[in-house]
Amino acid sequence: MSATVLFMSMSLDGFITGPDDGPGNGLGDGGHRLHAWLADGGEDPASYRPADASGAVFDELMATGAVVVGRRTFEIAGSWNGDHHDDVPIFVLTRRPEGARAWPNVTYVTDVAEAMARAKEAAGGRDVLVHGARTAQLALAAGALDELEIHQVPVLLGEGRRLFEGLGREHIELELARVIDAPGVTHLRYRVRPV
Amino acid sequence: MSATVLFMSMSLDGFITGPDDGPGNGLGDGGHRLHAWLADGGEDPASYRPADASGAVFDELMATGAVVVGRRTFEIAGSWNGDHHDDVPIFVLTRRPEGARAWPNVTYVTDVAEAMARAKEAAGGRDVLVHGARTAQLALAAGALDELEIHQVPVLLGEGRRLFEGLGREHIELELARVIDAPGVTHLRYRVRPV
Repeated sequence: MSATVLFMSMSLDGFITGPDDGPGNGLGDGGHRLHAWLADGGEDPASYRPADASGAVFDELMATGAVVVGRRTFEIAGSWNGDHHDDVPIFVLTRRPEGARAWPNVTYVTDVAEAMARAKEAAGGRDVLVHGARTAQLALAAGALDELEIHQVPVLLGEGRRLFEGLGREHIELELARVIDAPGVTHLRYRVRPV
Repeated sequence: MSATVLFMSMSLDGFITGPDDGPGNGLGDGGHRLHAWLADGGEDPASYRPADASGAVFDELMATGAVVVGRRTFEIAGSWNGDHHDDVPIFVLTRRPEGARAWPNVTYVTDVAEAMARAKEAAGGRDVLVHGARTAQLALAAGALDELEIHQVPVLLGEGRRLFEGLGREHIELELARVIDAPGVTHLRYRVRPV
């Protein structure tokens, strides 16, 4: 059964970037700290796959069959030159698809539930990689996110962009499905409980 | 070696209360969700000690030799009737000690570093229990907090009081010392790296 899974590196204080993130500074000032676990894990220069316990999580991410991402994150990442991994289809959430740059694998979608549903269909039974804070917030609000894979990084960044913001006061219940205590990062997998 | 240890229950999205916390509503609206792991653990009515894997963390908390707490948290908690546990000394951080209610075990202190130093001395080699968001923030800024014991609760509260707020843009590096994956809560112990 295909699941939509948010993969995000987050500091213990909840940030996914340092301050002043934007084009040319995707992770914000000092935000590269959040990806140190990828480099510190004995990165294979050809693939970035960590050689330690983080490798299994990296493999899951790379085994996804489609990607859903917000347009802001997508463009700040240089659109991954149109290919996130293995040429899987990418669904980019945007309010204004008109004029967006065309890529062979990329579909622009305005509604988060539609983006998730089309990505699941396109993934052919594999999981869907979800990325970006705003997309995560919209997907949670729409009940369209199945799981969270949080790479919790042992640092307090102090400032930056928060992953969980503006969710409103309704609780969203989670269930911890797995903990991987890897060097320099704790991978926490949660299932989102349907309301 | 005595350590100052912050013990706090926190939602995955970083909240330690629900919204509208205050006198008579200490955990805020719906914030009791954060303490469900204590009740769900097979609470012993005489001691509140969880019967599951959380019991070890509860025992550590109860084995501390002194308490440092902010005045706001202290008073919202009804001052624990002057005794948090086992009559250990309590150091209450406040800007205005004048007129505060006197209790035999309680000392009011205006400076966070002084509160921590005096609590360590009073703890007789045991750890110091630190409690409260503002006190944690001040202690982190002063380099006076040694460890964090975060009871991470699998829920997104959406609104409330955040544990980590206003820390500024200097990173505070942590080191994960232990993970206890207990029913309904993940206990994460971090050491704060000295700058």
